[in-house]
Amino acid sequence: MGFKSDIEIAQEAKIKPINEIADYVGIPDKYVENYGKYKAKIDYRYYNDELVKKPDAKLVLVTAINPTPAGEGKTTTTIGLADALNGLGKKTMVAIREPSLGPVFGVKGGAAGGGYAQVVPMEDINLHFTGDLHAICAANNLIAALLDNHIHQGNKLDIDLKRVTWRRCIDMNDRQLRRIVDGLGEKPDGVTRQDGFDITAASEVMAVFCLANDINDLKAKIANIIVAYSRSGEPVRAGDLNAQGAVAALLKDALKPNLVQTLEGTPAFIHGGPFANIAHGCNSVIATKMGMKLADYMITEAGFGADLGAEKFIDIKCRMSGLRPNAVVLVATIRALKYNGGIAKDELQAENLAALEKGIPNLLKHIENITKVYNLPAVVAINKFPTDTDAEVELVRKKCKEYGVNVALSDVWAKGGKGGEELAKEVIELTKGESTMEYVYDVNAPIKEKIEAIAKRVYGADGVDYSPKALKEIKNLETIGLGNIPICVAKNQYSMTDDAKILGRPTGFRITIRDITASAGAGFVVALTGDIMKMPGLPKVPAAEKIDVDAAGVISGLF
Amino acid sequence: MGFKSDIEIAQEAKIKPINEIADYVGIPDKYVENYGKYKAKIDYRYYNDELVKKPDAKLVLVTAINPTPAGEGKTTTTIGLADALNGLGKKTMVAIREPSLGPVFGVKGGAAGGGYAQVVPMEDINLHFTGDLHAICAANNLIAALLDNHIHQGNKLDIDLKRVTWRRCIDMNDRQLRRIVDGLGEKPDGVTRQDGFDITAASEVMAVFCLANDINDLKAKIANIIVAYSRSGEPVRAGDLNAQGAVAALLKDALKPNLVQTLEGTPAFIHGGPFANIAHGCNSVIATKMGMKLADYMITEAGFGADLGAEKFIDIKCRMSGLRPNAVVLVATIRALKYNGGIAKDELQAENLAALEKGIPNLLKHIENITKVYNLPAVVAINKFPTDTDAEVELVRKKCKEYGVNVALSDVWAKGGKGGEELAKEVIELTKGESTMEYVYDVNAPIKEKIEAIAKRVYGADGVDYSPKALKEIKNLETIGLGNIPICVAKNQYSMTDDAKILGRPTGFRITIRDITASAGAGFVVALTGDIMKMPGLPKVPAAEKIDVDAAGVISGLF
Repeated sequence: MGFKSDIEIAQEAKIKPINEIADYVGIPDKYVENYGKYKAKIDYRYYNDELVKKPDAKLVLVTAINPTPAGEGKTTTTIGLADALNGLGKKTMVAIREPSLGPVFGVKGGAAGGGYAQVVPMEDINLHFTGDLHAICAANNLIAALLDNHIHQGNKLDIDLKRVTWRRCIDMNDRQLRRIVDGLGEKPDGVTRQDGFDITAASEVMAVFCLANDINDLKAKIANIIVAYSRSGEPVRAGDLNAQGAVAALLKDALKPNLVQTLEGTPAFIHGGPFANIAHGCNSVIATKMGMKLADYMITEAGFGADLGAEKFIDIKCRMSGLRPNAVVLVATIRALKYNGGIAKDELQAENLAALEKGIPNLLKHIENITKVYNLPAVVAINKFPTDTDAEVELVRKKCKEYGVNVALSDVWAKGGKGGEELAKEVIELTKGESTMEYVYDVNAPIKEKIEAIAKRVYGADGVDYSPKALKEIKNLETIGLGNIPICVAKNQYSMTDDAKILGRPTGFRITIRDITASAGAGFVVALTGDIMKMPGLPKVPAAEKIDVDAAGVISGLF
Repeated sequence: MGFKSDIEIAQEAKIKPINEIADYVGIPDKYVENYGKYKAKIDYRYYNDELVKKPDAKLVLVTAINPTPAGEGKTTTTIGLADALNGLGKKTMVAIREPSLGPVFGVKGGAAGGGYAQVVPMEDINLHFTGDLHAICAANNLIAALLDNHIHQGNKLDIDLKRVTWRRCIDMNDRQLRRIVDGLGEKPDGVTRQDGFDITAASEVMAVFCLANDINDLKAKIANIIVAYSRSGEPVRAGDLNAQGAVAALLKDALKPNLVQTLEGTPAFIHGGPFANIAHGCNSVIATKMGMKLADYMITEAGFGADLGAEKFIDIKCRMSGLRPNAVVLVATIRALKYNGGIAKDELQAENLAALEKGIPNLLKHIENITKVYNLPAVVAINKFPTDTDAEVELVRKKCKEYGVNVALSDVWAKGGKGGEELAKEVIELTKGESTMEYVYDVNAPIKEKIEAIAKRVYGADGVDYSPKALKEIKNLETIGLGNIPICVAKNQYSMTDDAKILGRPTGFRITIRDITASAGAGFVVALTGDIMKMPGLPKVPAAEKIDVDAAGVISGLF
């Protein structure tokens, strides 16, 4: 028997008109702006005018162990859990990130779940969707054009050409644009300088967009973005270029959350998709908040593993928005745990209790972080694979029990919501109380103290070392008033350490901060532990070569 | 009494839900894809499945004298004429081009008519609209990324780095990107070469998009685009990069015509907006054809004056699509005719019959072209200004009469459709017969012969001179099989000659072709008479600085 691909399952699905989905959660028609028959944007005025008075849903964060090449299925579990809760009669919404167009044409696209736990229409979601990423790209590049035009027209702000920090962006995997020299040619053709493009999701505009509470907040944050330094070392902000009004005008429709549905008709907001390393990696605050007024349970996810994603969700997104999760689902697979125990990718099918036991401490460290540091109740969701043995599952259950945490088997990939009932029931139990969430650090502590709190308490490091460049920049940021905002650590996602090869639960290590940058608009300081790739490239045979569309507009080859 | 700005008039308008507009022309609900409440895309399957059997509307082309800084009001007249016809009980649609985002942030945006002859919602139409330009931009840049990736991954096609003809694009006025060097950095960062960005509307993908009859035709045209030459001089096409499927997938929704409405509720397709110099400057074939099945009159426009716009409409758009206009409206203003007669812009208010008489021959030459060369019935629409005197209008009427053409006063800017009744009645008369349209040249003639036919018959030139580079390229194109396709002359729009300063009706001049390029995908050869700016810059004080949006999402400062 052959397996169906994700796109085959999605295209066979009986998908409801989006207005029926909106009706299910009671959104009045006047706030629903259709984008085709199966997508809609929900006007943010609905929140301010009506929803704000309503009680909030229970908020559940789905996170994971450190990702491995074996795959964990965090988004799939997020979607399947929401379907399971709806199946049990609990009004539930899901809020996830929107995928980037660029990677669709690279190795393989798609960030819309998998199997029978997907959001649809998946082709649209993976291509232009409702145009949010294009709007963010245009906003980013309008700031760039205004900046270079300012320099070209006389440079009244005395911008230092060697200290322009703002880069252009494009939603494409295009290594050719990583490092460029622009403004070549003749006098009317700008000022020659070094420049480069990042992929749109890496733009600070994306982070700002996801953290903004409303249009006025968006404008204030845009105005705060540091785009360059003057020759005397003063920060030059997007507000100095009078960019915030036009940028917000470009983003005004994008800022409305996108409503779609899961294969089982659960309402889903897919809105915003910032990088999970140089940014905070969560969907928009606006979507999460709106969804929490429309349902009794709101299931959302964060980027990468719980060391990066959950930490940023709590210390950045929750801190800035006032959100407080009630419980955390920690996704793992038996395969990924064995990989963490040192087994090669092609040997993960065979039962191997010794390797599993060696890998489980990665899971346990994340449990410890969630329950002791973030102070939240947790359940471990084992995303089932056919090769998992009963003995393996039993071992995970036993070890988690020692940490006071239950394990729920999840089979949502193969069975949809039905496969997530055990997990859903556990979630209902865990969310009965008020949120007990705690931040990892005091936001008013000095930058170094905050970084050290994350490194020691969350990663388990002995301490932090800083490059001279990082130290200098910390001093600069504290001088210009950016000392008392949250920290966003850019670290590889595979290891708790800053060395991607050290898996499991490392101890006796130090973290090195190589550089520090400010995302003053988004409102956090980025601490970089290494080089972060902000512009991917295409592989030898790009996925684009196999993508096609027929005369009726049906897409193939997307997955 | 103060005049209202365009955006004020537009925002005060009682705008109908777009589904009511679709109902008016009988589009079944299943083909209507809403984009918000006031915009919709109409599925092209509607055309193939149902409309194709229906009779065609009368097709009316609106064109103009050579543009001047005084303004002519071609789009305003196009919209007002359609409103007037509907007001007279004739079911009428209008099909115009969609504006580009970039210029909105420059001097002043907007290409949505003016006064009481506008299409709405004007802010949306001028900003992202339904995302078509973003889709075209992504498609253009996917081809670029695939091309550079091919070179980076080993360059099997042996692409000559000095003969890459494909450029990247962005929908922004950004002179900084006109000339760049990309692929700098280290080995993984691409191959260092000269490159540059054009504004999206100048991409060949835009021209292809506007000329495609359906998705299969779109794919075939994309595959034909020449993106580079190999080191042995062979053309390398987008099809050699297997780009056409993914590019068409990116464009599949964009290809559906965008339905909006005029201030008076006339259904309007706004779809596609190619450059009128290096491309053919008309809205999409798909929109024009679909609209002709939905109404009894279809009013459309072409770019610039009738020497460039109408010629390309007939020789490129009509030739490739089988469309045949029934009549032509030639728009002029008294002010613009006086400007053509040599009067400075700030002296145009005063009555000046001598200057008018000196400028009228520009109008008469266009009349001659339309009636004698294109062989179509014409009416001159004088777009009224308060400063026009009766004597001036009378003089224009008298001169046109000598050429057998009537003049209709149009006051649609101030009065909407009511102001266009005289013109509408004339149009009804002129379109009573079948189309008598003739092409300017035989498409199978040699390239030089075709260019000379346009220069002599349309511009009134004595002959054509060619640079050595142009001669070499003509030989190349005829060798690689591009000798028997239409010609697209890129010439300044102000003069019939290739010198923008020579106004009126010049005689005794020659046209110089400085360069030739192939738009092999779009299916025409571009003959350049000078440097064409394909990437505008921002002015000293960009319009962006005054654009804003309030907390409820209402935009200001757009005009």
